[in-house]
Amino acid sequence: MKVQADLSKLSIRRAVKADLPRLLELIADDDLGKNREGVGSDEACYVEAFDRISADSNQFLMVAEMDGRIIAMQQVTFIPGLSRKGATRAMIESVRVDGYLRGQGIGHWFIQQAVQLARERGCKLVQLTSDKKRIQAHRFYGSMGFVASHEGFKLQLEN
Amino acid sequence: MKVQADLSKLSIRRAVKADLPRLLELIADDDLGKNREGVGSDEACYVEAFDRISADSNQFLMVAEMDGRIIAMQQVTFIPGLSRKGATRAMIESVRVDGYLRGQGIGHWFIQQAVQLARERGCKLVQLTSDKKRIQAHRFYGSMGFVASHEGFKLQLEN
Repeated sequence: MKVQADLSKLSIRRAVKADLPRLLELIADDDLGKNREGVGSDEACYVEAFDRISADSNQFLMVAEMDGRIIAMQQVTFIPGLSRKGATRAMIESVRVDGYLRGQGIGHWFIQQAVQLARERGCKLVQLTSDKKRIQAHRFYGSMGFVASHEGFKLQLEN
Repeated sequence: MKVQADLSKLSIRRAVKADLPRLLELIADDDLGKNREGVGSDEACYVEAFDRISADSNQFLMVAEMDGRIIAMQQVTFIPGLSRKGATRAMIESVRVDGYLRGQGIGHWFIQQAVQLARERGCKLVQLTSDKKRIQAHRFYGSMGFVASHEGFKLQLEN
């Protein structure tokens, strides 16, 4: 059984382009992600995507570091809206924690950092979707107060 | 039984601030929305929210008009990302169709307009979440090719 990590050793910051190789490692190191990425073979698409994220002030691509190494990432998108009295919502995507460090409370701490950022930006709602195959993740989000109130629909486009 | 609307009479455009009173009518005219909006009582919050949406080039607040009247609205957010080879995704929120016109194929046509916009912007994925209470909406999205592959989690924040 793994023990709780020493969370005082963790820090967060916004990702910079030099982090990209490590971010792609985290994205590919995932049961569902490993078949849909071509890391290394086609890097221009990732660099362009990083630039699109950086150019959008409503995106915050967040990394967590421990001992100078990136051990987690997530993307927070701020979505202004009219409903709920003009509420801005925060959407969390692409949550990844280093496989060697799972089960130590890091994911919980990291999502809390996104929630704190959402509060600071005045959001009234934080939302995310999680593949129905990720049963463990659902228990995890439930334990943090997230409610599975919605169906998450996806439509793949052939461009 | 309602008949199919004459879709050739419909057109879409980006919402402008003068549309706001009508947009708020559509938002409030909804079983789930009517209890969480205070339309008219606190309009400054909606004007500020409209300005936030307009200032973000990754937002497209779309309205459909018929005979010069707005009969539907939806908000499309373009979210650049690293995963899926740097795919940008389109997220649809706040879909509303005038209650008098439901069941005539307008919703289907309108969502297709959002999907077409997503294609034009190079998106590889269109996503949305729908409250689990909206059973009819789920059949509707399924009929359009959307797959309910994800759980949609929400966390309300007390600011």
